[in-house]
Amino acid sequence: MNDKKKKPQKLKARLPRGFVDRSAADIRAVDGMVAKIREVYERYGFDPVETPLFEYTDALGKFLPDSDRPNEGVFSLKDDDDQWMSLRYDLTAPLARHVAENFNEIQLPYRTFRAGWVFRNEKPGPGRFRQFMQFDADTVGAAGFQADAEMCMMMADTMEALGIARGDYVIRVNNRKVLDGVLEAIGLGGEENAGRRLHVLRAMDKFDKFGSNGVRLLLGGGRWDGGSEGVGDFTKGAGLSESAISAIIKLLTVFDDRFADLLGDMQDLQFKEIFGSEFSINPTFEAGAQELYSIYNLVFAAGYEFDRIKIDPSVVRGLEYYTGPVFEAELTFPVTNEKGESVVFGSVGGGGRYDGLVSRFMGQPVPATGFSIGVSRLMTALKNLGKLGEDEVLAPVVVCVMDRDIEALGRYQRFTQALRHAGIRAEMYQGNKKNFGDQLKYADRRGAPLAIIQGGDEREQGIVQIKDLIEGKRLSGEIEDNATWREARVAQVSVPEAELVEKVREMLDAQRQDRDRAAG
Amino acid sequence: MNDKKKKPQKLKARLPRGFVDRSAADIRAVDGMVAKIREVYERYGFDPVETPLFEYTDALGKFLPDSDRPNEGVFSLKDDDDQWMSLRYDLTAPLARHVAENFNEIQLPYRTFRAGWVFRNEKPGPGRFRQFMQFDADTVGAAGFQADAEMCMMMADTMEALGIARGDYVIRVNNRKVLDGVLEAIGLGGEENAGRRLHVLRAMDKFDKFGSNGVRLLLGGGRWDGGSEGVGDFTKGAGLSESAISAIIKLLTVFDDRFADLLGDMQDLQFKEIFGSEFSINPTFEAGAQELYSIYNLVFAAGYEFDRIKIDPSVVRGLEYYTGPVFEAELTFPVTNEKGESVVFGSVGGGGRYDGLVSRFMGQPVPATGFSIGVSRLMTALKNLGKLGEDEVLAPVVVCVMDRDIEALGRYQRFTQALRHAGIRAEMYQGNKKNFGDQLKYADRRGAPLAIIQGGDEREQGIVQIKDLIEGKRLSGEIEDNATWREARVAQVSVPEAELVEKVREMLDAQRQDRDRAAG
Repeated sequence: MNDKKKKPQKLKARLPRGFVDRSAADIRAVDGMVAKIREVYERYGFDPVETPLFEYTDALGKFLPDSDRPNEGVFSLKDDDDQWMSLRYDLTAPLARHVAENFNEIQLPYRTFRAGWVFRNEKPGPGRFRQFMQFDADTVGAAGFQADAEMCMMMADTMEALGIARGDYVIRVNNRKVLDGVLEAIGLGGEENAGRRLHVLRAMDKFDKFGSNGVRLLLGGGRWDGGSEGVGDFTKGAGLSESAISAIIKLLTVFDDRFADLLGDMQDLQFKEIFGSEFSINPTFEAGAQELYSIYNLVFAAGYEFDRIKIDPSVVRGLEYYTGPVFEAELTFPVTNEKGESVVFGSVGGGGRYDGLVSRFMGQPVPATGFSIGVSRLMTALKNLGKLGEDEVLAPVVVCVMDRDIEALGRYQRFTQALRHAGIRAEMYQGNKKNFGDQLKYADRRGAPLAIIQGGDEREQGIVQIKDLIEGKRLSGEIEDNATWREARVAQVSVPEAELVEKVREMLDAQRQDRDRAAG
Repeated sequence: MNDKKKKPQKLKARLPRGFVDRSAADIRAVDGMVAKIREVYERYGFDPVETPLFEYTDALGKFLPDSDRPNEGVFSLKDDDDQWMSLRYDLTAPLARHVAENFNEIQLPYRTFRAGWVFRNEKPGPGRFRQFMQFDADTVGAAGFQADAEMCMMMADTMEALGIARGDYVIRVNNRKVLDGVLEAIGLGGEENAGRRLHVLRAMDKFDKFGSNGVRLLLGGGRWDGGSEGVGDFTKGAGLSESAISAIIKLLTVFDDRFADLLGDMQDLQFKEIFGSEFSINPTFEAGAQELYSIYNLVFAAGYEFDRIKIDPSVVRGLEYYTGPVFEAELTFPVTNEKGESVVFGSVGGGGRYDGLVSRFMGQPVPATGFSIGVSRLMTALKNLGKLGEDEVLAPVVVCVMDRDIEALGRYQRFTQALRHAGIRAEMYQGNKKNFGDQLKYADRRGAPLAIIQGGDEREQGIVQIKDLIEGKRLSGEIEDNATWREARVAQVSVPEAELVEKVREMLDAQRQDRDRAAG
């Protein structure tokens, strides 16, 4: 409409904090990675099932770590009918709702996987986003430790399928009941101690980072970040007694000292002999330790030794819905952190048993266990290892537009379609640059392997020029700057129109052979 | 923790209205479809780029059809810093933001594609969801009709790549300028007529459904849904004059009458001779008609005739950001609607030129054009055509759990891992049913091809039984009911443990050959 022109107020193009766009290389890398993970999950007999991004807020529940205020951590809004909806913060809570809603149609055990976006309404930071991708597998309706053991083996196989060498990863296993049992034994049971328990668990979670001495401080009077009093930030301690601290440190370190021996002792249920001097063994602890022992035995029988799957009582896992075994996939190779220190890469995923999550909806217990991979974090790890699939998608052949009358354009378009229909990536130049050099610059920046050129003279003769841009680039390596290379001799051939596709294919093949030779 | 038991209030497991879970078959079908579409887009020289699900509300803009009130149609919430964020309602508005935000790094023309979830905060209905998937391709920084023509050809190629036969689809092309030109000519130009224009465009959009006579009524005094006065619902008419109605009907029908002739006339820019008797030709109309003619010529030169790409002035497209050519991919084969009537399947995607969307953020014009496929709707269409990839993922081999001591479980687990590591889908039974028949029932419902069985006697002899469940099922076809088939002879073999993998592979191969034979 020819309305009077109003100068529109210029909008600022920007994303909300904690959200990012994804580049072609990242998308292709994630797609490749996800395909490899899926292949392992399928081989283990899991099938895909997905839920939508929204759930009713009450159906999701509040199980996020570190969220004391209601609704903290999740994005929520009110629907037309005044019910609160939230974007999922993980893939486990929605699966629990899905199973409960379709319980009569579902065949148990229900073995499924799903990859998808999850959202956390948190303060974003470096490498910490408000939208990120998880890839989960879950077995619902399986009460036995076998299902937990299977999760651990599947994660080990997944790491290796992604090219992570044995020795560069470990699946660490613990049990919430073991943790709860010790906490109970040192007098931190009961609802009234929930806050202190959380404090202690967070301290234990730091064992990898700070070691025994650091955790001792966090469990006792507190810890200075700089290493000595008054240096750096101060973290308040849990204020435990010396004997309580000793019990926890014993738990954290005992497997490190004599892992294999201990398994023998556990077999005879000698928990009292192992731990009894530090705290009194209660049924909760005993049940948890026995499950750990059974998991370890089963994976060992299947050929997974403790270079791959390892009992580790410092594994805590933040989410509050876990009820039994918990696991973590840790990458053990060193990377340099932002302070320039060499540290192990750390966790790329985890999970555990959540026997209460489905039964919240049901009149009956529904046991379940699962594992979740942090896709972006794993991608970063694979980048570090050089194991991320290189971008193998070749840029398109660019058909230059020398003339813009409809007859000439029709020919260029015909060339382009002929190449595409022969399975060759191709595009006709769509920009507004009429200058031939500018179009070649576009093709060059795009990484195009070839350019197709036909001016008026060639059109009359029914021929086309094919310019080899990779050859040109190779030659340009011997030339000093980008500006002069285009003046250097570049490989260029002239063929009849009818032979275009065949010749292009031949030149692309030659380039591929060059690349293969270069790659050795 | 052994807290006092509180009977928890039972939650109801349900999804918010308009959201659905996705089954394994649907996920695999969509994945297969999306892979085929991506292959075409890649071949056309497009690369993936993705944006997050949230945008600032002002950056998205308000371009949804039929949304008169602010924020209608979108899910919005306030961020911590009091700025409004919304979930994207399409993939085009976020792309515009992405391009504007990264304008200095982006090489134009910028040719990209993306598949992703979009959200509409609307009343859900049958086949109408509040979360659905779109698959878009866009060229930004290309002002010429060539870019629009390319979109049309790419969509035609996409339909054929999905197995939709030529003749079962058509890409319909129109131009907003043509529509605007006619509306201007009949006195509906200007801001003050925006509401009436929308009314007229909606009526034109119904041409396919109601034909000339129906649209006449909608443009004039109104239309009764039942066909005659007082029958069914009444839709208020636009109240146009007879001559205005004639002009629009002429536009809607002229190409149907003599499509090929008309193109010849358009070549000579004889728009006045074609349309002049009905309304006065203005520059807006002329520019639009000329673009249509050029697009048609270019695709024709590349071998796409009007059985595939067709000018059709009844194409309106609801979104308000279109500024030039608009397209729609229509499936023309008949389906039966909910009233039992035979109708053409209809639109599975569309798009057009949106020259103003990026420039809202910029001090300069940035032309762009794109196409969006409605993934779920296309999937429904392919289901109707029987062109949806059948679920070819074989269910896993089930290793039964006859004994539950750790030694026996270890063996079952070893068998399972051996099969998996040989690339065979397998699972050890994880449920709580100890009864062998119940485990076989699970394997059967799961569609498992084979079951592996080892009881105490077999274990002592170091052998395993392999039961062929497909053979059992085939035999059961000749038997009357499901209950008796398990008593019939089923193929079962006994092999030494060491030969398990080899024998399983052999039996799966035999089953595969059976299936191939059955499929002819």
